[in-house]
Amino acid sequence: MKRRLLLVSNSTLHGSGYLDHCEHNISHFFGKDVKRVLFVPYALHNRDAYTKTARDKFKTLGYEVDSIHKAADPVDAVRKAEAIFIGGGNTFRLLKSLYDNKVVTEIRRRVLEVRPLSAHLPAPNVATISINTTNDMPIVYPPSFSAIGLVPFNINPHYLDPDPNSRHMGETREQRITQYHEEPDTPCVLGLREGSMLLVEGNKATLLGTTKARLFTRGKSSVEYDPGSDLSVLLTDAQ
Amino acid sequence: MKRRLLLVSNSTLHGSGYLDHCEHNISHFFGKDVKRVLFVPYALHNRDAYTKTARDKFKTLGYEVDSIHKAADPVDAVRKAEAIFIGGGNTFRLLKSLYDNKVVTEIRRRVLEVRPLSAHLPAPNVATISINTTNDMPIVYPPSFSAIGLVPFNINPHYLDPDPNSRHMGETREQRITQYHEEPDTPCVLGLREGSMLLVEGNKATLLGTTKARLFTRGKSSVEYDPGSDLSVLLTDAQ
Repeated sequence: MKRRLLLVSNSTLHGSGYLDHCEHNISHFFGKDVKRVLFVPYALHNRDAYTKTARDKFKTLGYEVDSIHKAADPVDAVRKAEAIFIGGGNTFRLLKSLYDNKVVTEIRRRVLEVRPLSAHLPAPNVATISINTTNDMPIVYPPSFSAIGLVPFNINPHYLDPDPNSRHMGETREQRITQYHEEPDTPCVLGLREGSMLLVEGNKATLLGTTKARLFTRGKSSVEYDPGSDLSVLLTDAQ
Repeated sequence: MKRRLLLVSNSTLHGSGYLDHCEHNISHFFGKDVKRVLFVPYALHNRDAYTKTARDKFKTLGYEVDSIHKAADPVDAVRKAEAIFIGGGNTFRLLKSLYDNKVVTEIRRRVLEVRPLSAHLPAPNVATISINTTNDMPIVYPPSFSAIGLVPFNINPHYLDPDPNSRHMGETREQRITQYHEEPDTPCVLGLREGSMLLVEGNKATLLGTTKARLFTRGKSSVEYDPGSDLSVLLTDAQ
């Protein structure tokens, strides 16, 4: 399998600009062969403004950006893309738009099959099995929670540790993931803290960035992984 | 319209026990005529344990509890109930189970039509138009986000003000509700902070509890309301 994915917990880190914290990773990931990147702005309401933000940032890294929302045929745009960048925002809106524009299957085919497409995803939930472990508000109803399925596990982005001083009684992130694992046949969930990302190349997965990640497996204790850890085990069918 | 609803932001307030912060409101709401309350434990995985928690608490207030998950015919249980209490937990799981057990229509009929049923809801999202403004993780896929529709607006429970000291880059609650209102034809959203609740009697709505609530209307500035405020405007069709 030739897939190449960079799954990023968050687009902006506190105190820095849009994609600043991962710009070196982006340059290294797309490399010098890629000239143009297909941007998917579906997760935010103002797609023109979002495209401008992405275009300005990618220009500083040496890449041109074409937005899928300006393409006459979105499926054809995916078919012809050198590389794809799916922007973060509201996961429900993003997934619904991916289905509405009928590009879910084509993105999966391009990333997983012949002539692979490098995919950079600050919206990592849509790359996984399902969006069941997003933190976003369900502002629209997608036709399914099944996502593009580029990897056989789920992600909880912006993962947060419990705040011992909090007086708020909403569930902690760990409690929410535990609730998910109370449901039958639920896959592993990788809690990606802000500042961390997962690089997937074929059947190898490596944790990058500056923060640890926490892996939740149904019926087992959760495990912490340091940046640099090999997480290829997540890509095996046994997960 | 005879509906009587007590929509509660949260079941447990920091530093107190289950339903302690609203027990006087519950006693006043159900009154002395009600003897038995039908409990809906669908929002948590362990329904037996949840029922025991609710039963023990309601016993101290003088009410017997029957759980709908032990009823041979859930629709008939709703039809015959004197009063209903829908427990909080995961809103997606709750709404899916309400649909799976085919009780959505019967609860709506009983609350809104003849021989009204008093409904106490620490799971206020399911009483509204839709669950689009829940904070919960979408751990299961319900057949719709449309809820029971006992009131013509939506609620964001456990409403949180932005933390000026936070370094976390996830959206604030206000940003999430704003994203919801970017979608067309979206109704008002009442942000119920922990400690607040809304009493609905016919076409009158009153904010109860100890904290303010914040009302978000599409295309307008949000407005704060003190405990005791009349919020009947939320029940008019113009909303």
